[in-house]
Amino acid sequence: MSTLGAPDPMRSGTIAASEETANNGSVRRRNLGAVLTHVHRAARLSRADLTALTGLNRSTVGVLVAELAELGLVSEGDPIPRGTPGRPSPAVDPADGVAVLGVDVGVAVMRFAVSGVGGALRGRLEVERATSRRDPEGTADDVAALVRCALADLRDRPVAAIGVAVPGVVRRQDGLVRVAANLAWHDVPFAELLAARLGPDGPPVLLGNDAELGAVAEHLRGAGRGVDDLLYLVGGVGLGGGIIAGGQPFGGATGYAGEVGHLVVDPAGHDCTCGGRGCLETQVGLRALLRRLGRDDQGEREAVAGLVADAAAGDGDVLAALAECGAWLGRGIASLVNVLNPSRVLLGGYLAEVHPHVLPALRRALDHHAQRPNRSVVTVAPAALGRDAVLRGAVELALGPLLADPLWVAGR
Amino acid sequence: MSTLGAPDPMRSGTIAASEETANNGSVRRRNLGAVLTHVHRAARLSRADLTALTGLNRSTVGVLVAELAELGLVSEGDPIPRGTPGRPSPAVDPADGVAVLGVDVGVAVMRFAVSGVGGALRGRLEVERATSRRDPEGTADDVAALVRCALADLRDRPVAAIGVAVPGVVRRQDGLVRVAANLAWHDVPFAELLAARLGPDGPPVLLGNDAELGAVAEHLRGAGRGVDDLLYLVGGVGLGGGIIAGGQPFGGATGYAGEVGHLVVDPAGHDCTCGGRGCLETQVGLRALLRRLGRDDQGEREAVAGLVADAAAGDGDVLAALAECGAWLGRGIASLVNVLNPSRVLLGGYLAEVHPHVLPALRRALDHHAQRPNRSVVTVAPAALGRDAVLRGAVELALGPLLADPLWVAGR
Repeated sequence: MSTLGAPDPMRSGTIAASEETANNGSVRRRNLGAVLTHVHRAARLSRADLTALTGLNRSTVGVLVAELAELGLVSEGDPIPRGTPGRPSPAVDPADGVAVLGVDVGVAVMRFAVSGVGGALRGRLEVERATSRRDPEGTADDVAALVRCALADLRDRPVAAIGVAVPGVVRRQDGLVRVAANLAWHDVPFAELLAARLGPDGPPVLLGNDAELGAVAEHLRGAGRGVDDLLYLVGGVGLGGGIIAGGQPFGGATGYAGEVGHLVVDPAGHDCTCGGRGCLETQVGLRALLRRLGRDDQGEREAVAGLVADAAAGDGDVLAALAECGAWLGRGIASLVNVLNPSRVLLGGYLAEVHPHVLPALRRALDHHAQRPNRSVVTVAPAALGRDAVLRGAVELALGPLLADPLWVAGR
Repeated sequence: MSTLGAPDPMRSGTIAASEETANNGSVRRRNLGAVLTHVHRAARLSRADLTALTGLNRSTVGVLVAELAELGLVSEGDPIPRGTPGRPSPAVDPADGVAVLGVDVGVAVMRFAVSGVGGALRGRLEVERATSRRDPEGTADDVAALVRCALADLRDRPVAAIGVAVPGVVRRQDGLVRVAANLAWHDVPFAELLAARLGPDGPPVLLGNDAELGAVAEHLRGAGRGVDDLLYLVGGVGLGGGIIAGGQPFGGATGYAGEVGHLVVDPAGHDCTCGGRGCLETQVGLRALLRRLGRDDQGEREAVAGLVADAAAGDGDVLAALAECGAWLGRGIASLVNVLNPSRVLLGGYLAEVHPHVLPALRRALDHHAQRPNRSVVTVAPAALGRDAVLRGAVELALGPLLADPLWVAGR
């Protein structure tokens, strides 16, 4: 099977029924999707909760839950006591009858997991990527090998889709990687390359930008839970970003939004790998930070561990460099807060690990440069999911079609 | 009547019918709104067009159109020949049975018009604002006087709402003006002030940010027609912005989004009226441009006319200043294009009038600083509605509740 555009599970509302019988099927599918999406997000709900959340009546919810249970997507458990008079309502839990695969293709590391409704990560793998295999073909070969291995392990359990996060600008409609600067990829049809290796019977492949998927995960299960206007910044070699607006990932016209590392913050600044000059990531990316300290930028993990340890030990040079990073970041975030008006900004990647040393200067700059009304409604905080954010987001991407239309994977 | 949050007419879809009869009323209202919104936007449609656009069946559309005609919101005209075999389909046109009022409260000028379904501007007024009457109370008195005059003139014709554009940051839920720097307003409950003057029988007052409303108007009726991911920049004393994303106005968490004049573009830059430093508007606002040329910044209109004339005559200083403005603007737009990924950027306000002299340098800077994929899908063009954009947007704001629920104004 080829690549797919990702339906958006978060748009699934409920509809009561239809004037024309031809529509009955699609209404039922949509209602099944809404119930499944609620169970997926909450992990455990009672049937009474589902009735309240969907606005559907009790008997309709009962029928939908039974149908989802038959598909292996939910299971019905013991009644949950409600603390109010009346019968306890049966619990509805995620079930693992259908799997999805998530892959986070980093520059130096690849992460992989099997998941399903509920989003728990199982069968996790983390592998170093050889420099010689970071080209599109080598990467597709390696991902395909991991996928085949997982498919064999899952035996007959259906796999709804594979969600793949890449560190680059992804064209939403067909999974073309327009640019992945740190992999030196340009216009790589990565979803196609991977789908071709998996053959016509392979699960559909969905591709997304790593920071955008990290934002989705932090929104659903991390430090942005319940926050519908959210900006997620992820510090790596450079600086990536993901925007959640009104509870939805914000992609822009073609899915290229969120390139916050390329805010132009200094007309007299450093040249950037993007070909521009004075980009924010030339001041706050890990590469920039290490260069400022005269340190080697090989080995991201070791470098960050070193920074954290030295800052904790009171190393003046490291603390000054982190404060300078914070001041630049504060100006950049002020611009974003003025334009996007989020209610929370999350610092992810290496920034989450060094946040105590970055936040004071960041907040001073933000107070100075953000418009007062915009500043008054936003908080800045570290992200919560660490290195799992992107992988979890890739799983959410893969679950999209199933949550939007649970009958689709059953071929009905 | 007091203030109202603005429902969004653009979200009105159609629903066929309902499982539970209790919903029947709301489905009918929503379908009436969808039909009316299509007629409003297109100005003239046939019933066959409406059937195709809404997905409802022919007889349902006929009933809805008849009901809207009874409410005085549309009229049915002669059949429109279709150029295909079959009966010609009756035309459906906007009717003026219900009015709305639009007000554009500028710093120095106030614009006013009566409108209705279809959005045509009638009874237009443009008045200079005395410096002594730019405070909240004086402004509310002057708007109220214009409104009373229009209401008397309209006699018994119902007025659905008054849409008011202000040059400031507006809290969506209650029409509080958080900041309007060029009016020196802070936390002014302007919608309340105006509603109090109009009394309990006055039409509801809806308040919006001028640039955001200008963006709505350019999107529906100007240079952004059919472009669903749009960024509208409006050059005045400072620089305002309005964002349309996915066909909807993008407000952020609290409606404060779009403050593009306060992108921080130069850490060593000029102090800004907002209290920050190095904001984009300190380089590209009219005040900055005139200061660069050593010209007086009193009288915006005369100043712009002077710039246009001098540029056309080849004045080297003016051309150089406009080119410098274009270079700063190009860097700022690059940041916005990287973060928001619009497919069109419109230059409004004074920038529309000087655009031939600004665009070459703007495009060079944009080419240099925008990410290649983002750059490849965006065009930059002058806005089309000129000084009417904001007034037209205020009319759209006022039409919102009526288009969302046509029965609401009839008190049904």
